[in-house]
Amino acid sequence: MAATGASGTTTVRYGGMREHVRALTVVLADGRVIRTGSLAAKSSSGLDLTHLFVGSEGTLGIFTELWVRIWGIPEATLAARAEFKTVDQAVAAATAIIGAGVPVVRLELVDAPFFQYINAYAHTAFALSPTLLLEFRGSRLGARADLAAAKDLVMEEGCTVFQEVEDAARQGEMWAARHSAAFAFMAAHPGLGHLATDVCVPISKLGEAVGRAKAALAELRMEGAILGHVGDGNFHVSLAVNPNDPADLARAEALSGRLVDHALSVQGTCTGEHGVGIGKRRYQDREHGPSLAVMRSMKALLDPKGILNPGKLVDAESETAGR
Amino acid sequence: MAATGASGTTTVRYGGMREHVRALTVVLADGRVIRTGSLAAKSSSGLDLTHLFVGSEGTLGIFTELWVRIWGIPEATLAARAEFKTVDQAVAAATAIIGAGVPVVRLELVDAPFFQYINAYAHTAFALSPTLLLEFRGSRLGARADLAAAKDLVMEEGCTVFQEVEDAARQGEMWAARHSAAFAFMAAHPGLGHLATDVCVPISKLGEAVGRAKAALAELRMEGAILGHVGDGNFHVSLAVNPNDPADLARAEALSGRLVDHALSVQGTCTGEHGVGIGKRRYQDREHGPSLAVMRSMKALLDPKGILNPGKLVDAESETAGR
Repeated sequence: MAATGASGTTTVRYGGMREHVRALTVVLADGRVIRTGSLAAKSSSGLDLTHLFVGSEGTLGIFTELWVRIWGIPEATLAARAEFKTVDQAVAAATAIIGAGVPVVRLELVDAPFFQYINAYAHTAFALSPTLLLEFRGSRLGARADLAAAKDLVMEEGCTVFQEVEDAARQGEMWAARHSAAFAFMAAHPGLGHLATDVCVPISKLGEAVGRAKAALAELRMEGAILGHVGDGNFHVSLAVNPNDPADLARAEALSGRLVDHALSVQGTCTGEHGVGIGKRRYQDREHGPSLAVMRSMKALLDPKGILNPGKLVDAESETAGR
Repeated sequence: MAATGASGTTTVRYGGMREHVRALTVVLADGRVIRTGSLAAKSSSGLDLTHLFVGSEGTLGIFTELWVRIWGIPEATLAARAEFKTVDQAVAAATAIIGAGVPVVRLELVDAPFFQYINAYAHTAFALSPTLLLEFRGSRLGARADLAAAKDLVMEEGCTVFQEVEDAARQGEMWAARHSAAFAFMAAHPGLGHLATDVCVPISKLGEAVGRAKAALAELRMEGAILGHVGDGNFHVSLAVNPNDPADLARAEALSGRLVDHALSVQGTCTGEHGVGIGKRRYQDREHGPSLAVMRSMKALLDPKGILNPGKLVDAESETAGR
């Protein structure tokens, strides 16, 4: 399960979707129907099965009901754009905002090339600069104070244009543009497939991780555009690959593998939100070490015949190929 | 593990301790040492073992290291006291604050009798009224706006005295008084033991739950004082019991059982933060239903010889006594 907000972007203040799931009804492999969790805001009763099932990619059971926490619409929702000369500056600014504890609700990085694709695809006219997109929610005064604090921090990191996005219609346009990024990328690369990396690192290591991504792109002579839920330390490099060209696929895998190598070296994760499926099974052993055997024993306990989404997530097959 | 803030009170905005644990080192029953989780803010890799271990009361493994998320000190920390004529009004006010989404960091209910005990114990002079204690954090303007919004809501619910607690020293006194409540209760009942109930219900059912607690106290002719992390829907009834008097203990258990009956009927939990141990094992079957068998199979998988904190939490012995 992708730990992203309702609109597919980071919700730093409120956490990922995982934290908002209170209870589940799950059908197990042997036909038993169980209910996990409760509707209370907290509990110390029993073992926490809810979080074990959430993110299990259908390998432990089938969810037939789930209960999620909901949030009211706040008095004020403010948004802003912050342009920079370099991605490094934008990442430094994002790191400063999180480090200072400013309660930003969305904090998205969109690198310059993406705005070329988006402008062409959505007929917009965004500046072709690495840009942070920010959202603040709360009381009118509180959200305004948070926006002002974030502005101070980004200006210190070299922001060249800081623009508050005033009304709801313009905010909607900005987030729609952000959400069209993957489609715009694909439209700009007809006939090619879209492969996105997905590491997530501690926020203090984000600048280093993005720097390594750029260096790897240059070294491997690949074109790629960076887009990130930077408030979470999670970013993607979008790559256009020819799915029929083994060399192209291999380069893309090499790039992804380098980013995973770095993420794991700083105790991050090989996938922030896209999941493991088959493609990242090869990193499970390295990321989880002896925990992987425990995960596998849980899978064997709940699905001894291997009938639930076989071959995915912690399945033993070929997991060490990436070592 | 109690899902409370660093100072033992509710942290509504930031959630319980569970959500702040990012990674664990755990020694398993067979001697294996595993590391769960990562230091990234989010991950979709593997199965979430961290949350399975947190709150397992030492029955699945022994934690030797843990990594927690930390938060910076905000620009402003504001606090307030709100006095009411009745506990019902105080609970209605707390429910209104949470329902409106005002980001209160601590929201504690202390019933009138507790202030008698606290004043005698700590030489303070708090009014003998059901009182909400509130804390707000953030930017100066934001925290002030949140406090003002909460004040509007509590006044509508019949608050008789609303007092902002201005400086850090006075705030410290107020929270110290709150934290001394259990000691003050024990000092006021020399020779008796202190038994506290601990249900947690959906916030919409909190008024009903507290009303039932009061009705049960009256019917069973028991003296008890209510204290609650009401922002979470979690409250305690403190009871003074003679540990050598089986009738006294039975009445206390009967009261606790009635509160659990109600909590489970509204999909709450038998323990919000105190844990199961031995005393609430009897409710595990009723609360978790067919999930309990899954929890027990996890326990058997990880600790087949039953050497880790035996007889606690989901242990099979006598769990149906409370049905």
